[in-house]
Amino acid sequence: MTLLSTIDSGFLLTESHHSPKHIGSLMVYRLPKGKGPAWLRKMLDDMRQHPPSYPLDQRIKRQVGLLFDMETDDRFEIDYHVRHTVLPRPGNDRQLNDVLARMHANLLDRDRPLWEFHLIEGLSDRRFALYFKVHHAMADGITFGRWIDRSTVTDPKDLSLRPIWAVTEEPEDAEQPDLSYAQIIQDGVKALGGGIRTAIDVSLITAKMVQRRFFDKDDHVALPLSAPRTPINVHTGAARAVSFTAYRLEALRAIGKSQGGTINDVVMTMCDMAVSRYFDEHGTRLKGPLVAYMPVSIRTAESDGRGNLVTLLQVKLASRHEDPLDSLAEVRESIDSAREVFSGASSTAVQYYSLMVALLSLFEELLNLDRLLPPVNNMVISNVPGSRVQRYLRGAESIGVYPVSTLPPLTALNVTACSFAGTMYFGLIAGRTAIPDLDTLTEYLDDAFFALAEATGVSTD
Amino acid sequence: MTLLSTIDSGFLLTESHHSPKHIGSLMVYRLPKGKGPAWLRKMLDDMRQHPPSYPLDQRIKRQVGLLFDMETDDRFEIDYHVRHTVLPRPGNDRQLNDVLARMHANLLDRDRPLWEFHLIEGLSDRRFALYFKVHHAMADGITFGRWIDRSTVTDPKDLSLRPIWAVTEEPEDAEQPDLSYAQIIQDGVKALGGGIRTAIDVSLITAKMVQRRFFDKDDHVALPLSAPRTPINVHTGAARAVSFTAYRLEALRAIGKSQGGTINDVVMTMCDMAVSRYFDEHGTRLKGPLVAYMPVSIRTAESDGRGNLVTLLQVKLASRHEDPLDSLAEVRESIDSAREVFSGASSTAVQYYSLMVALLSLFEELLNLDRLLPPVNNMVISNVPGSRVQRYLRGAESIGVYPVSTLPPLTALNVTACSFAGTMYFGLIAGRTAIPDLDTLTEYLDDAFFALAEATGVSTD
Repeated sequence: MTLLSTIDSGFLLTESHHSPKHIGSLMVYRLPKGKGPAWLRKMLDDMRQHPPSYPLDQRIKRQVGLLFDMETDDRFEIDYHVRHTVLPRPGNDRQLNDVLARMHANLLDRDRPLWEFHLIEGLSDRRFALYFKVHHAMADGITFGRWIDRSTVTDPKDLSLRPIWAVTEEPEDAEQPDLSYAQIIQDGVKALGGGIRTAIDVSLITAKMVQRRFFDKDDHVALPLSAPRTPINVHTGAARAVSFTAYRLEALRAIGKSQGGTINDVVMTMCDMAVSRYFDEHGTRLKGPLVAYMPVSIRTAESDGRGNLVTLLQVKLASRHEDPLDSLAEVRESIDSAREVFSGASSTAVQYYSLMVALLSLFEELLNLDRLLPPVNNMVISNVPGSRVQRYLRGAESIGVYPVSTLPPLTALNVTACSFAGTMYFGLIAGRTAIPDLDTLTEYLDDAFFALAEATGVSTD
Repeated sequence: MTLLSTIDSGFLLTESHHSPKHIGSLMVYRLPKGKGPAWLRKMLDDMRQHPPSYPLDQRIKRQVGLLFDMETDDRFEIDYHVRHTVLPRPGNDRQLNDVLARMHANLLDRDRPLWEFHLIEGLSDRRFALYFKVHHAMADGITFGRWIDRSTVTDPKDLSLRPIWAVTEEPEDAEQPDLSYAQIIQDGVKALGGGIRTAIDVSLITAKMVQRRFFDKDDHVALPLSAPRTPINVHTGAARAVSFTAYRLEALRAIGKSQGGTINDVVMTMCDMAVSRYFDEHGTRLKGPLVAYMPVSIRTAESDGRGNLVTLLQVKLASRHEDPLDSLAEVRESIDSAREVFSGASSTAVQYYSLMVALLSLFEELLNLDRLLPPVNNMVISNVPGSRVQRYLRGAESIGVYPVSTLPPLTALNVTACSFAGTMYFGLIAGRTAIPDLDTLTEYLDDAFFALAEATGVSTD
């Protein structure tokens, strides 16, 4: 048996038509000089000659308790997975976003390896795009980024081709899953991998949280179920909206550095400013600061970066401030508080705590408790590192790598940022009913960036 | 409250990612002389100006017990429902089928009115296509056909435009639903609309069936759970394959008439011959004749043709014969037997009996009883009347109207035929894992047609 780990199985277990658990990437390229549709078709035909490698050749064999057993798909049909779409003229970004929103809203077929690849032709300005969609049970953002790197090259003259589904790795030796929903639910803390140690760590997290919040009066600690109610913390529905933007990585770094902070602090602050303004403009008054899920890697030195090794920190964002630098300062303190609460605990304990909070959110949705309880969190803000250098696909220059992520229960907004060759690319995904005007939110994000740059004297050119 | 009827609600209740319950139509047109992509875009823009009319402006408000309460969608977003797709070159039928199979595999969004409309550009030979997809809870094939008629005209010079989502009718006065799953399951026969009369009729159906089968030794009667096991009576999975073909209506009529039968007898026989041969070629030996679901209309003179008024007859098909005319004769007798068993019973009783058989099939799937019990049926064969005369869309000539139907539980094949302007158009839809080579089956259907025509001396030109 090749069992998926608990976190990976969790993505399959909690999936539904209204809550797909796949992640995607939109990779935009410029056509090489003198090349057109025939060149694209030839490239796609060449790609189709490559069979998928592990784990993208695996399909679900059966469910074993709450875990999933995988097997090699011996009837793999490349034409089902590899697709070719043409945008109608003029092929502008709005058309691209609409097509992507539809593609990303559709569930993957569980009878087959859990991925799809789309070549999108007909984009204006001699551009074309690749959209790769893979189940979150197969990969997290970091793994995904490595696959993108391996399927492209750094030399524009290197015309070798290795499709993204054929760059992956050999199966590991069969391993017992590390942490199981079933165990957690049925046997309690004692059955966890870390045993007593985990139990103590989990208590420590809770104790630290209580101490900081109530004894040290640290308002920055986000207790579970402390997020304000908002119009975006609703059942997300099946339809999605997507929107994209990008900023110079150096500018983000300079803004952060000027205040003693990181790029991530700036990204979180921009999102907070944009979403808060969005609510203001829509006449929504919030009772207190927004709370965001911030996925953080829990990879250790030993882990080789396969599969999912991510947990979700809850970060309380800023109160309302006139000066964007005050927002930045408050968000920074909150992130530090969130990290501090979890510091020193084993990764098993952090996973356990995060899983509990995530399950709380799921139960809230399933049992329709959202009318009774406040939301567990308001939105997801994620930040994934990508290639540092420019990359090419058979001579075509990469001009954008935008993440397209997934929505947790009762959370109609995910903003994921991905650095790539000196630019930070933002992909926003939303429940289309809750946020029909997602492009407005993206404009507010741009405005927040310019406001922070101006306040810190950083050039945006 | 505007409650959907039992049959309509049933389509929503039994729907899942692996078993979508929408039906579609592929309408192929020839571009008018001198017109191209700009003309298509203009037409689509003009269509978008029309809001949907009842019931296509309705969305699900909530579930009331096992029924669904509908309301007008006051946030209707036309761009979500009306979509524009371009096929990559060369735009051949195989590409069209692949795109359709994907579109048809995806569930409709239950937060919005349950339909999608796709303009498909880029088909070879100056063709374009419209694909309209609507939930079976909103319409059956007959209603669908009427909508197609109302959205097209008979005069090529008539350039008026009325999109298919804007041709529908006003709501009826609120009515109690006629027959409820809940009632059937919870209260048994006594709670049915027809009361004692229904109970007697249902007993009569069963009694007649037993009498004919065992006392009259009529082997043509299909008892429930008497279908042979086949490789296509499996969980269908989410992915679909579609395939299309067409025959002259006059030829089908002449073949039937020569043997004292109907067009429907010929259609059923062709399907039986093709599917039996498909199993032969794949080395599958069947224990006895195939059993097909044949949807029949139970509309009465009073009903005005709205919504769903269809029930499913179970028809045992033919044993193996060398002579296609022997197959035709046996299928004819079987259809007569199936109709005879139900004749005289009230439509409520027929619905009740059919619903029971359908639920049996659903339970078989849900409880994974398919390894223990034989299938309830092997396939669906349906036959829907369409326009008798040629029709046009803003001067573009209609050159094909192909049905794209839905699959019941544990049934990976549906063949639906639709007559239109002198041609019978066949749409085959299959579970893509169970029947990856659906085009082969379509070729066998063509061969069966030619064999029957040759045996009856009917011209196929």
